[in-house]
Amino acid sequence: MPHITLSDGVPGIRSLVMYRPETGQPLYDLAQALLRAGSPDSTLNDADRELIAAFVSKQNQTDFCMNSHAAASRYLYADQRDVVDQTLDDVDTAPISAKLKALLAIAGHVQADARTVSDELVAAARTEGASEGDIHDTVLIAASFCMYNRYVDGLATFTPTDPAAYEAMGERMGTVGYQLPKVKA
Amino acid sequence: MPHITLSDGVPGIRSLVMYRPETGQPLYDLAQALLRAGSPDSTLNDADRELIAAFVSKQNQTDFCMNSHAAASRYLYADQRDVVDQTLDDVDTAPISAKLKALLAIAGHVQADARTVSDELVAAARTEGASEGDIHDTVLIAASFCMYNRYVDGLATFTPTDPAAYEAMGERMGTVGYQLPKVKA
Repeated sequence: MPHITLSDGVPGIRSLVMYRPETGQPLYDLAQALLRAGSPDSTLNDADRELIAAFVSKQNQTDFCMNSHAAASRYLYADQRDVVDQTLDDVDTAPISAKLKALLAIAGHVQADARTVSDELVAAARTEGASEGDIHDTVLIAASFCMYNRYVDGLATFTPTDPAAYEAMGERMGTVGYQLPKVKA
Repeated sequence: MPHITLSDGVPGIRSLVMYRPETGQPLYDLAQALLRAGSPDSTLNDADRELIAAFVSKQNQTDFCMNSHAAASRYLYADQRDVVDQTLDDVDTAPISAKLKALLAIAGHVQADARTVSDELVAAARTEGASEGDIHDTVLIAASFCMYNRYVDGLATFTPTDPAAYEAMGERMGTVGYQLPKVKA
Protein backbone atom coordinates (compact mmCIF):
# COMPACT_ATOMS: atom_id res chain seq x y z
CA MET A 1 0.00 0.00 0.00
CA PRO A 2 1.35 3.47 -0.89
CA HIS A 3 2.12 5.73 2.10
CA ILE A 4 -0.15 8.49 0.73
CA THR A 5 -3.47 8.47 -1.15
CA LEU A 6 -2.68 7.79 -4.81
CA SER A 7 -4.92 6.78 -7.73
CA ASP A 8 -5.75 3.07 -7.57
CA GLY A 9 -3.84 0.89 -10.00
CA VAL A 10 -1.68 3.70 -11.41
CA PRO A 11 1.94 2.55 -11.13
CA GLY A 12 5.18 4.14 -9.96
CA ILE A 13 6.16 7.68 -10.87
CA ARG A 14 2.96 8.12 -12.89
CA SER A 15 0.82 7.96 -9.72
CA LEU A 16 3.08 10.58 -8.09
CA VAL A 17 3.09 13.13 -10.91
CA MET A 18 -0.72 12.84 -11.01
CA TYR A 19 -0.88 13.36 -7.23
CA ARG A 20 1.23 16.52 -7.37
CA PRO A 21 1.47 17.97 -10.91
CA GLU A 22 3.28 21.09 -9.64
CA THR A 23 6.37 18.96 -8.98
CA GLY A 24 5.43 16.38 -11.61
CA GLN A 25 5.84 18.87 -14.44
CA PRO A 26 9.54 19.67 -13.78
CA LEU A 27 10.22 15.98 -13.06
CA TYR A 28 8.89 15.00 -16.50
CA ASP A 29 10.50 18.04 -18.17
CA LEU A 30 13.84 16.89 -16.77
CA ALA A 31 13.34 13.33 -18.05
CA GLN A 32 12.38 14.63 -21.49
CA ALA A 33 15.38 17.01 -21.71
CA LEU A 34 17.80 14.37 -20.50
CA LEU A 35 16.53 11.09 -21.98
CA ARG A 36 15.20 12.42 -25.31
CA ALA A 37 17.27 15.45 -26.25
CA GLY A 38 20.53 15.57 -24.29
CA SER A 39 23.55 17.80 -24.72
CA PRO A 40 24.19 19.13 -28.26
CA ASP A 41 27.61 17.45 -28.48
CA SER A 42 26.46 14.14 -27.03
CA THR A 43 26.96 10.91 -28.98
CA LEU A 44 24.46 8.92 -26.89
CA ASN A 45 21.20 7.90 -28.52
CA ASP A 46 17.87 7.57 -26.71
CA ALA A 47 18.26 3.80 -26.30
CA ASP A 48 21.66 4.29 -24.60
CA ARG A 49 20.15 6.90 -22.26
CA GLU A 50 17.32 4.57 -21.25
CA LEU A 51 19.87 1.81 -20.67
CA ILE A 52 21.87 4.02 -18.26
CA ALA A 53 18.59 4.79 -16.44
CA ALA A 54 17.72 1.09 -16.18
CA PHE A 55 21.26 0.21 -15.04
CA VAL A 56 21.18 2.75 -12.19
CA SER A 57 17.65 1.69 -11.20
CA LYS A 58 18.88 -1.90 -11.00
CA GLN A 59 21.71 -0.83 -8.67
CA ASN A 60 19.11 0.93 -6.51
CA GLN A 61 16.90 -2.19 -6.67
CA THR A 62 13.90 -0.15 -7.82
CA ASP A 63 12.03 -2.72 -9.89
CA PHE A 64 9.45 -0.34 -11.34
CA CYS A 65 12.03 2.03 -12.85
CA MET A 66 14.38 -0.75 -13.89
CA ASN A 67 11.64 -2.68 -15.72
CA SER A 68 10.03 0.33 -17.38
CA HIS A 69 13.27 1.95 -18.60
CA ALA A 70 14.67 -1.42 -19.70
CA ALA A 71 11.48 -1.87 -21.74
CA ALA A 72 11.89 1.61 -23.27
CA SER A 73 15.52 0.84 -24.10
CA ARG A 74 14.57 -2.49 -25.73
CA TYR A 75 11.89 -0.75 -27.80
CA LEU A 76 14.39 1.91 -28.95
CA TYR A 77 17.24 -0.52 -29.71
CA ALA A 78 14.70 -2.39 -31.91
CA ASP A 79 16.52 -5.31 -33.60
CA GLN A 80 19.41 -4.98 -31.13
CA ARG A 81 17.06 -5.18 -28.16
CA ASP A 82 18.94 -8.13 -26.61
CA VAL A 83 21.82 -5.86 -25.56
CA VAL A 84 19.62 -4.44 -22.79
CA ASP A 85 19.35 -7.65 -20.80
CA GLN A 86 22.92 -8.64 -21.63
CA THR A 87 24.14 -5.31 -20.21
CA LEU A 88 21.96 -5.51 -17.12
CA ASP A 89 23.22 -9.07 -16.53
CA ASP A 90 26.94 -8.28 -16.99
CA VAL A 91 28.36 -5.04 -18.40
CA ASP A 92 31.81 -6.56 -18.95
CA THR A 93 30.67 -9.21 -21.42
CA ALA A 94 27.82 -7.24 -23.04
CA PRO A 95 28.13 -6.45 -26.79
CA ILE A 96 28.14 -2.66 -26.30
CA SER A 97 30.86 -0.12 -27.14
CA ALA A 98 33.86 0.47 -24.89
CA LYS A 99 32.63 4.08 -24.65
CA LEU A 100 29.26 3.05 -23.25
CA LYS A 101 30.95 0.64 -20.81
CA ALA A 102 33.18 3.49 -19.56
CA LEU A 103 30.13 5.73 -19.14
CA LEU A 104 28.25 3.01 -17.25
CA ALA A 105 31.25 2.74 -14.92
CA ILE A 106 30.87 6.46 -14.18
CA ALA A 107 27.11 6.02 -13.67
CA GLY A 108 27.81 3.21 -11.20
CA HIS A 109 30.10 5.45 -9.16
CA VAL A 110 27.54 8.28 -9.18
CA GLN A 111 24.95 5.89 -7.75
CA ALA A 112 27.19 4.47 -5.03
CA ASP A 113 29.06 7.63 -3.98
CA ALA A 114 29.43 10.44 -6.52
CA ARG A 115 32.55 11.75 -4.79
CA THR A 116 34.37 8.68 -6.17
CA VAL A 117 34.00 9.73 -9.82
CA SER A 118 37.74 10.12 -10.41
CA ASP A 119 39.79 11.92 -13.05
CA GLU A 120 40.88 8.46 -14.18
CA LEU A 121 37.31 7.23 -14.79
CA VAL A 122 36.52 10.37 -16.78
CA ALA A 123 39.79 10.17 -18.76
CA ALA A 124 39.04 6.53 -19.61
CA ALA A 125 35.65 7.53 -21.03
CA ARG A 126 37.22 10.33 -23.10
CA THR A 127 39.82 7.90 -24.46
CA GLU A 128 36.97 5.73 -25.73
CA GLY A 129 35.39 8.71 -27.49
CA ALA A 130 33.02 10.16 -24.87
CA SER A 131 32.35 13.90 -25.32
CA GLU A 132 31.91 16.47 -22.53
CA GLY A 133 28.16 16.24 -23.11
CA ASP A 134 28.25 12.45 -22.76
CA ILE A 135 29.99 12.78 -19.40
CA HIS A 136 27.60 15.50 -18.23
CA ASP A 137 24.50 13.64 -19.36
CA THR A 138 25.66 10.32 -17.87
CA VAL A 139 26.28 11.91 -14.46
CA LEU A 140 22.92 13.69 -14.50
CA ILE A 141 20.99 10.63 -15.71
CA ALA A 142 22.56 8.56 -12.92
CA ALA A 143 21.95 11.29 -10.33
CA SER A 144 18.35 11.87 -11.42
CA PHE A 145 17.53 8.16 -11.20
CA CYS A 146 18.84 8.18 -7.65
CA MET A 147 15.97 10.67 -7.15
CA TYR A 148 13.23 9.01 -9.23
CA ASN A 149 14.04 5.62 -7.64
CA ARG A 150 13.83 7.02 -4.11
CA TYR A 151 10.62 8.94 -4.83
CA VAL A 152 8.93 5.78 -6.14
CA ASP A 153 10.27 3.54 -3.33
CA GLY A 154 9.97 6.04 -0.45
CA LEU A 155 6.23 6.39 -1.01
CA ALA A 156 5.74 2.67 -1.69
CA THR A 157 4.01 3.16 -5.05
CA PHE A 158 2.30 0.36 -6.96
CA THR A 159 4.76 -1.86 -8.89
CA PRO A 160 3.12 -4.11 -11.53
CA THR A 161 4.52 -7.62 -11.84
CA ASP A 162 3.21 -8.47 -15.33
CA PRO A 163 5.97 -8.06 -17.97
CA ALA A 164 3.33 -7.07 -20.55
CA ALA A 165 2.54 -3.96 -18.51
CA TYR A 166 6.16 -2.82 -18.84
CA GLU A 167 6.28 -3.63 -22.54
CA ALA A 168 3.35 -1.24 -23.09
CA MET A 169 5.03 1.43 -20.94
CA GLY A 170 8.30 1.03 -22.84
CA GLU A 171 6.56 1.54 -26.17
CA ARG A 172 4.81 4.67 -24.88
CA MET A 173 8.07 6.07 -23.45
CA GLY A 174 9.84 5.26 -26.72
CA THR A 175 7.25 7.02 -28.87
CA VAL A 176 5.59 9.90 -26.97
CA GLY A 177 8.36 10.41 -24.39
CA TYR A 178 7.66 12.04 -21.02
CA GLN A 179 4.43 13.98 -20.97
CA LEU A 180 2.37 14.64 -17.86
CA PRO A 181 -0.74 12.40 -17.83
CA LYS A 182 -4.03 14.24 -18.26
CA VAL A 183 -5.78 14.50 -14.89
CA LYS A 184 -9.60 14.33 -14.93
CA ALA A 185 -11.21 17.57 -13.71
CA MET B 1 39.09 20.73 -11.04
CA PRO B 2 35.63 20.04 -12.47
CA HIS B 3 35.40 17.06 -14.84
CA ILE B 4 33.89 19.22 -17.63
CA THR B 5 34.48 22.83 -18.72
CA LEU B 6 32.47 25.05 -16.38
CA SER B 7 32.59 28.83 -15.79
CA ASP B 8 35.58 29.73 -13.60
CA GLY B 9 34.73 30.52 -10.00
CA VAL B 10 31.01 29.74 -10.28
CA PRO B 11 30.19 27.27 -7.51
CA GLY B 12 28.21 24.03 -7.30
CA ILE B 13 24.86 23.60 -9.00
CA ARG B 14 24.97 27.15 -10.35
CA SER B 15 27.90 26.28 -12.65
CA LEU B 16 25.96 23.25 -13.92
CA VAL B 17 22.65 24.97 -14.69
CA MET B 18 24.65 27.63 -16.59
CA TYR B 19 26.51 24.90 -18.53
CA ARG B 20 23.29 23.18 -19.58
CA PRO B 21 20.22 25.43 -19.14
CA GLU B 22 17.95 22.90 -20.90
CA THR B 23 18.25 20.62 -17.86
CA GLY B 24 18.96 23.53 -15.48
CA GLN B 25 15.49 24.98 -15.99
CA PRO B 26 13.53 21.91 -14.74
CA LEU B 27 16.09 21.41 -11.94
CA TYR B 28 15.45 24.94 -10.65
CA ASP B 29 11.69 24.70 -11.33
CA LEU B 30 11.62 21.60 -9.14
CA ALA B 31 13.53 23.32 -6.32
CA GLN B 32 11.21 26.31 -6.50
CA ALA B 33 8.02 24.17 -6.47
CA LEU B 34 9.30 21.99 -3.64
CA LEU B 35 11.27 24.34 -1.39
CA ARG B 36 9.17 27.51 -1.81
CA ALA B 37 5.61 26.41 -2.48
CA GLY B 38 5.05 22.80 -1.49
CA SER B 39 1.85 20.80 -1.27
CA PRO B 40 -1.34 22.77 -0.53
CA ASP B 41 -2.01 20.87 2.71
CA SER B 42 1.59 20.99 3.94
CA THR B 43 2.40 22.50 7.33
CA LEU B 44 6.13 22.90 6.56
CA ASN B 45 7.48 26.41 6.11
CA ASP B 46 10.33 27.35 3.77
CA ALA B 47 12.90 27.28 6.60
CA ASP B 48 11.88 23.70 7.49
CA ARG B 49 12.17 22.65 3.83
CA GLU B 50 15.67 24.10 3.54
CA LEU B 51 16.60 22.33 6.78
CA ILE B 52 15.51 18.95 5.35
CA ALA B 53 17.61 19.71 2.24
CA ALA B 54 20.67 20.58 4.37
CA PHE B 55 20.16 17.49 6.55
CA VAL B 56 20.11 15.12 3.55
CA SER B 57 23.09 16.90 1.97
CA LYS B 58 25.02 16.40 5.20
CA GLN B 59 24.23 12.66 5.11
CA ASN B 60 25.53 12.59 1.52
CA GLN B 61 28.61 14.58 2.63
CA THR B 62 28.05 17.17 -0.11
CA ASP B 63 29.51 20.27 1.53
CA PHE B 64 28.36 22.75 -1.11
CA CYS B 65 24.67 21.83 -0.82
CA MET B 66 24.80 21.39 2.95
CA ASN B 67 26.39 24.79 3.53
CA SER B 68 24.23 26.70 1.05
CA HIS B 69 20.90 25.21 2.17
CA ALA B 70 21.85 25.52 5.85
CA ALA B 71 22.55 29.21 5.17
CA ALA B 72 19.16 29.60 3.44
CA SER B 73 17.45 27.89 6.38
CA ARG B 74 19.22 30.15 8.91
CA TYR B 75 18.19 33.21 6.92
CA LEU B 76 14.56 32.04 6.82
CA TYR B 77 14.37 31.00 10.50
CA ALA B 78 15.64 34.54 11.31
CA ASP B 79 15.74 34.95 15.11
CA GLN B 80 15.50 31.16 15.53
CA ARG B 81 18.46 30.58 13.20
CA ASP B 82 20.38 28.58 15.82
CA VAL B 83 18.06 25.59 15.38
CA VAL B 84 19.71 24.85 12.03
CA ASP B 85 23.13 23.98 13.45
CA GLN B 86 21.57 22.33 16.50
CA THR B 87 19.57 20.05 14.20
CA LEU B 88 22.51 19.26 11.92
CA ASP B 89 24.59 18.44 15.03
CA ASP B 90 21.99 16.21 16.70
CA VAL B 91 18.36 15.87 15.68
CA ASP B 92 17.38 14.15 18.94
CA THR B 93 18.31 17.06 21.20
CA ALA B 94 17.48 19.91 18.77
CA PRO B 95 14.70 22.34 19.83
CA ILE B 96 12.43 21.49 16.88
CA SER B 97 8.93 19.96 16.85
CA ALA B 98 8.35 16.23 17.25
CA LYS B 99 6.65 16.41 13.83
CA LEU B 100 9.77 17.77 12.15
CA LYS B 101 11.92 15.16 13.91
CA ALA B 102 9.64 12.40 12.60
CA LEU B 103 9.85 13.84 9.07
CA LEU B 104 13.66 14.07 9.29
CA ALA B 105 13.69 10.39 10.26
CA ILE B 106 11.79 9.63 7.04
CA ALA B 107 14.22 11.82 5.06
CA GLY B 108 17.14 9.91 6.56
CA HIS B 109 15.67 6.61 5.41
CA VAL B 110 15.01 7.96 1.90
CA GLN B 111 18.66 8.97 1.65
CA ALA B 112 20.05 5.65 2.92
CA ASP B 113 17.62 3.24 1.25
CA ALA B 114 14.14 4.48 0.37
CA ARG B 115 12.71 0.96 0.49
CA THR B 116 13.09 1.15 4.29
CA VAL B 117 10.53 3.93 4.71
CA SER B 118 8.12 1.82 6.75
CA ASP B 119 4.43 2.13 7.62
CA GLU B 120 5.59 2.68 11.22
CA LEU B 121 7.80 5.67 10.34
CA VAL B 122 4.96 7.24 8.36
CA ALA B 123 2.41 6.53 11.11
CA ALA B 124 4.73 8.12 13.68
CA ALA B 125 4.91 11.31 11.59
CA ARG B 126 1.10 11.40 11.23
CA THR B 127 0.71 10.96 15.00
CA GLU B 128 2.84 14.09 15.48
CA GLY B 129 0.62 16.06 13.08
CA ALA B 130 2.26 15.53 9.68
CA SER B 131 -0.16 15.84 6.75
CA GLU B 132 -0.09 13.77 3.54
CA GLY B 133 1.55 16.74 1.82
CA ASP B 134 4.24 16.88 4.51
CA ILE B 135 5.07 13.23 3.94
CA HIS B 136 5.06 13.62 0.16
CA ASP B 137 7.17 16.76 0.22
CA THR B 138 9.67 15.32 2.72
CA VAL B 139 10.21 12.21 0.60
CA LEU B 140 10.63 14.26 -2.59
CA ILE B 141 12.95 16.83 -0.95
CA ALA B 142 15.13 14.00 0.37
CA ALA B 143 15.05 12.16 -2.98
CA SER B 144 15.80 15.30 -5.00
CA PHE B 145 18.81 16.16 -2.85
CA CYS B 146 20.16 12.67 -3.49
CA MET B 147 20.16 13.92 -7.12
CA TYR B 148 21.45 17.48 -6.64
CA ASN B 149 24.21 16.22 -4.32
CA ARG B 150 25.37 13.59 -6.83
CA TYR B 151 25.23 16.02 -9.76
CA VAL B 152 27.45 18.51 -7.88
CA ASP B 153 29.87 15.85 -6.58
CA GLY B 154 29.93 13.62 -9.67
CA LEU B 155 31.22 16.48 -11.83
CA ALA B 156 33.57 17.79 -9.11
CA THR B 157 32.19 21.34 -9.15
CA PHE B 158 33.82 24.24 -7.32
CA THR B 159 33.03 24.30 -3.58
CA PRO B 160 33.84 27.61 -1.83
CA THR B 161 35.34 27.34 1.65
CA ASP B 162 34.60 30.89 2.88
CA PRO B 163 31.50 30.91 5.14
CA ALA B 164 30.67 34.45 3.94
CA ALA B 165 30.10 33.08 0.43
CA TYR B 166 27.40 30.76 1.76
CA GLU B 167 25.80 33.49 3.85
CA ALA B 168 25.33 35.56 0.67
CA MET B 169 23.92 32.52 -1.17
CA GLY B 170 21.54 31.77 1.70
CA GLU B 171 20.15 35.31 1.64
CA ARG B 172 19.65 35.15 -2.14
CA MET B 173 17.95 31.73 -1.89
CA GLY B 174 15.77 33.04 0.96
CA THR B 175 14.66 36.12 -0.96
CA VAL B 176 14.59 35.46 -4.72
CA GLY B 177 14.37 31.66 -4.52
CA TYR B 178 15.49 29.45 -7.41
CA GLN B 179 15.79 31.34 -10.68
CA LEU B 180 18.11 30.36 -13.51
CA PRO B 181 21.13 32.70 -13.63
CA LYS B 182 21.24 34.96 -16.68
CA VAL B 183 23.81 33.65 -19.13
CA LYS B 184 25.76 36.25 -21.11
CA ALA B 185 25.13 36.02 -24.86
